[in-house]
Amino acid sequence: MVRFGILGAGRIGKVHAGTIANSSRASVAYVADAIPDAAAALAASVGAQVASIDQILASDVEAILIATPTDTHADLIEQAARAGKAILCEKPVSLSVERIEACLPVVKQAGVPLMIGFNRRFDPNFAAVQQRIKGGEIGEVEIVTIISRDPAPPPVSYIERSGGLYRDMMIHDFDMARFLVGEDFVSVHALGSALVDKAIGAAGDVDTAAVQMQTASGKIAVITNSRRATYGYDQRVEVHGSKGMLRAGNVHMTTLERADGAGFTQDVIQNFFIDRYVAAYAAEVNSFIDAMTKGVTPTPSGYDGLQAQKLAEAATRSSQTGQAVRVE
Amino acid sequence: MVRFGILGAGRIGKVHAGTIANSSRASVAYVADAIPDAAAALAASVGAQVASIDQILASDVEAILIATPTDTHADLIEQAARAGKAILCEKPVSLSVERIEACLPVVKQAGVPLMIGFNRRFDPNFAAVQQRIKGGEIGEVEIVTIISRDPAPPPVSYIERSGGLYRDMMIHDFDMARFLVGEDFVSVHALGSALVDKAIGAAGDVDTAAVQMQTASGKIAVITNSRRATYGYDQRVEVHGSKGMLRAGNVHMTTLERADGAGFTQDVIQNFFIDRYVAAYAAEVNSFIDAMTKGVTPTPSGYDGLQAQKLAEAATRSSQTGQAVRVE
Amino acid sequence: MVRFGILGAGRIGKVHAGTIANSSRASVAYVADAIPDAAAALAASVGAQVASIDQILASDVEAILIATPTDTHADLIEQAARAGKAILCEKPVSLSVERIEACLPVVKQAGVPLMIGFNRRFDPNFAAVQQRIKGGEIGEVEIVTIISRDPAPPPVSYIERSGGLYRDMMIHDFDMARFLVGEDFVSVHALGSALVDKAIGAAGDVDTAAVQMQTASGKIAVITNSRRATYGYDQRVEVHGSKGMLRAGNVHMTTLERADGAGFTQDVIQNFFIDRYVAAYAAEVNSFIDAMTKGVTPTPSGYDGLQAQKLAEAATRSSQTGQAVRVE
Amino acid sequence: MVRFGILGAGRIGKVHAGTIANSSRASVAYVADAIPDAAAALAASVGAQVASIDQILASDVEAILIATPTDTHADLIEQAARAGKAILCEKPVSLSVERIEACLPVVKQAGVPLMIGFNRRFDPNFAAVQQRIKGGEIGEVEIVTIISRDPAPPPVSYIERSGGLYRDMMIHDFDMARFLVGEDFVSVHALGSALVDKAIGAAGDVDTAAVQMQTASGKIAVITNSRRATYGYDQRVEVHGSKGMLRAGNVHMTTLERADGAGFTQDVIQNFFIDRYVAAYAAEVNSFIDAMTKGVTPTPSGYDGLQAQKLAEAATRSSQTGQAVRVE
Repeated sequence: MVRFGILGAGRIGKVHAGTIANSSRASVAYVADAIPDAAAALAASVGAQVASIDQILASDVEAILIATPTDTHADLIEQAARAGKAILCEKPVSLSVERIEACLPVVKQAGVPLMIGFNRRFDPNFAAVQQRIKGGEIGEVEIVTIISRDPAPPPVSYIERSGGLYRDMMIHDFDMARFLVGEDFVSVHALGSALVDKAIGAAGDVDTAAVQMQTASGKIAVITNSRRATYGYDQRVEVHGSKGMLRAGNVHMTTLERADGAGFTQDVIQNFFIDRYVAAYAAEVNSFIDAMTKGVTPTPSGYDGLQAQKLAEAATRSSQTGQAVRVE
Repeated sequence: MVRFGILGAGRIGKVHAGTIANSSRASVAYVADAIPDAAAALAASVGAQVASIDQILASDVEAILIATPTDTHADLIEQAARAGKAILCEKPVSLSVERIEACLPVVKQAGVPLMIGFNRRFDPNFAAVQQRIKGGEIGEVEIVTIISRDPAPPPVSYIERSGGLYRDMMIHDFDMARFLVGEDFVSVHALGSALVDKAIGAAGDVDTAAVQMQTASGKIAVITNSRRATYGYDQRVEVHGSKGMLRAGNVHMTTLERADGAGFTQDVIQNFFIDRYVAAYAAEVNSFIDAMTKGVTPTPSGYDGLQAQKLAEAATRSSQTGQAVRVE
Repeated sequence: MVRFGILGAGRIGKVHAGTIANSSRASVAYVADAIPDAAAALAASVGAQVASIDQILASDVEAILIATPTDTHADLIEQAARAGKAILCEKPVSLSVERIEACLPVVKQAGVPLMIGFNRRFDPNFAAVQQRIKGGEIGEVEIVTIISRDPAPPPVSYIERSGGLYRDMMIHDFDMARFLVGEDFVSVHALGSALVDKAIGAAGDVDTAAVQMQTASGKIAVITNSRRATYGYDQRVEVHGSKGMLRAGNVHMTTLERADGAGFTQDVIQNFFIDRYVAAYAAEVNSFIDAMTKGVTPTPSGYDGLQAQKLAEAATRSSQTGQAVRVE
Repeated sequence: MVRFGILGAGRIGKVHAGTIANSSRASVAYVADAIPDAAAALAASVGAQVASIDQILASDVEAILIATPTDTHADLIEQAARAGKAILCEKPVSLSVERIEACLPVVKQAGVPLMIGFNRRFDPNFAAVQQRIKGGEIGEVEIVTIISRDPAPPPVSYIERSGGLYRDMMIHDFDMARFLVGEDFVSVHALGSALVDKAIGAAGDVDTAAVQMQTASGKIAVITNSRRATYGYDQRVEVHGSKGMLRAGNVHMTTLERADGAGFTQDVIQNFFIDRYVAAYAAEVNSFIDAMTKGVTPTPSGYDGLQAQKLAEAATRSSQTGQAVRVE
């Protein structure tokens, strides 16, 4: 039985706490949140106690789930590591590559497991693509194409604190590209535009972007993002290999199709990220519990978190300078 | 808070008890089963007590969920009705139309709600088809086509006690046809063959069958069944109307597609009925709880259970005689 | 070089004459039509001469293509057979089974090849289904499902002379069912309604119909027809076998798909039978030329024409009486 | 009646001559080819005469179709222009931007129509996408995604004379991107690898490539190419706009689908460019005849040919230097 302390009782904290509470191998012992009512409500619903972060770190829980605001992640990882806790931290570790590079050695020295919450790796569709690639079904990977589009842009106030599209939104796709290619990328070129909302451009960010990357062995990944898609939360990957092609598409709300004079219309797709990735969030937490139970190292690791952040930083720079950027 | 007594701790009883236990508006108070260990295990997992059927009917629970073997359903419905309980009974009420016709007046006299567990009405895909029909999206319904194929035939020992394919398997499709057409059928013609397993034929049953039915207003439904499909649990409906066509297809395990020299291959479909209809089972129980909470009459009703059984009986007779059968 | 005389310069006569004229192995020598201008126009476009039917039958052409009105087919087949010509005759041979039974012995005695123009057997999609069945890809055929819907009903004046839906429209599907099942059917049950146009019902015909048929070995075919589909000319077949399932669907105008708030909409399907079956008509004529060139017997044969007509007649009777009909 | 002289009786020359010969508004008067037998065979099949290029240019034909090797195109365009002929020239005008820039003024001075044979603009699927974009169906274009993969790489001997992947293969996609976006691109970044065949790398070329481009207004296009796809000739476009998304996919050989334990498999796609684009080639030539008949300017124009070549040159340079290239 793995006992967790949950730091952060917001949207994602709740999703993860629910998964832990439903697991026969884990339980939530404590919940902490800056908003006392939020902590109390979540604690009540999963049979846990409210506590401060310090109390939780000083308690006997084996695992800490970090679902607090991004700018606290690195500090909390270090504190939890020093307290000897296994850590599952929501992505990203930090918007700053330097901060991640400072943080990871602390974890290493403490010898505790650290998993970064790149939930999309656990989506059953994308996970199946990766497993089949590993099984050799399409031979050598040559081109990875990732399309991610959000239903609607966040408010500009959010954009301003987000670190920009590449760090805030495309970070998921950088990790997915690494997950599917199975190698690190050495060059990044990014193009960005503010086409959806001019205010996003005025805030110094982009809302429409393309990135292409290459590994040392020549494998190529192409990512496009938009902050708005009128048809829902568009999440697709395609992998072209030497022996075939694999792709995983969107999840429609139902299998319903209507035919009439306008053509043949399939139902709309999932439109909200928590609905779209509900199975992924659960599988992610269960994978962490699994790793702890079996004593194996969980993935995605801190290194994966660092590499995704490096790609986001390179893309941000490339988008600003117009030139390709090398990643060492 | 609706308190339930669960009669039957088998496969379906467990699914339903889980839904009730997870509901914020309902709870499981008691579980009864002929196998004490089964009752105890289920009771423990949902925080309920083990009790006998008599004890449960004498208790203060408001609702009884009947998930016992088919041949006990009608008796239990009558007992529960006389005890003044709201009843959710797994399909079918009975393999005998006469028995159902004797049972329903008892329920009526007791004035208790009775819902029959035709789970497929609550499948999100099929429910959406029916809602759009009701919304007028395809005008008048003209032809309903239902295809149901099981992954593999049950053992002959099961077949022998099953009442035959029309009562055991196609019963779901009779209800679905009525649900989609919105009218009763007045004529039934059935064709059956034992093509999958000659032992099924030797046992006097068929494993491959087609039925066509017509309503008084001329609407047509066509159903085909097979006890075996190499590609999984095939569950499809299509409704052709005066203004368009609606269909709902199978649920693939993932959205994964592979392309190679053999073509473009989509992932396999759900292969087990409980997985395929997991959302439907939950929605069914929630619909019953909803009806109880709001004081409205739940559907599908006992009348729906009776009509489906009449169609199954007519089809059985038609299949045996080779002639069409009128249903009054 | 196979030289043809074309009897009938209407819509289908023109399509076939064009195919013959474009073939490197065949040519059109003569064209006959009751309307001199039609004959002249078609003859000019394919480099042929206008002639009377008698002149053509007395000429040295090897092959006669009969594309005249249905009620002349049987007489012309007999005349052409007696003149020693190979015959490609549009379906049906006759609306009367008796007339076909009288006609076929004349052909047999003359020892000339006779092919009936069931064009759908030559559709690349349906032909591929049948070839794969023959190749054993899905094992034994168990259930054939055929859906045919016309875009819009013909005028009632046409309906009145048509022989009724089963002889006029479903005749194609009877042949397709035999083509895919590879056996003759021994029982037929039909249900028909006039739901599209009450005037069709008033004329004694139906516009919406379902037929189910069984072979002596127990294989089942289910056919549904409608005289109207708002979404185009709906032409589908599905074959369920012991090792898998094969289906062939509609042909969309383009591969275009649009996604927006209404869902994902594929382009409309072919809406006119000559466009939908353009490849089939050409393949049909080329198959006949092929058979002649190689000295093999063309199919579908006169027997195929007879059997389809018997099924149409049985279905008509079943629809009128409400009872299943045996076909000997 | 537009009379054509055909220069080049190779694969494409034959396709185009066939279209012209079948047109009621055009005819082939002369055919020239360096191989006398090729010219004679084609001339015979379309009812034309064999002649030398000089004879054809001196004749009274109104139009010249240039389907000779690429390195002769620019010279022949100039000669035909000076002879006052309307010109339909296969892509590309030249592998050299400078040569095109020298050629176009000659055409302009002669005042003759010049159309460049970018056949994919005339594919019914892609043409429909562009027409719907022009009709405003998806609002403003934001991201264009083009995927082109050949079934198998050409021999290295061809590669060596081809000008490289960007000029030889991706040239089509550069034109398609301009066609769909409706603006010129100002920046180009290309990544290339030799993953399919190391010999292609040794010859200084790539066989796997990605390009991303941006217009002055910020619209983005992403193109990926591979010289090999095990599943056929992969040709797709997708356009994401402010009001929706449009895409056009591959053309499957048939609509056949098989279901079995491996999943649901659609038939393979067209595997040869002439089969895949048969309708496009015909529509292209008919569009040219149309423009001539109506006295309007044909497109794609010489300017379109020049711009595609500039993008190919920029991509080649970018791929070699690793840096983005501005296109003025």
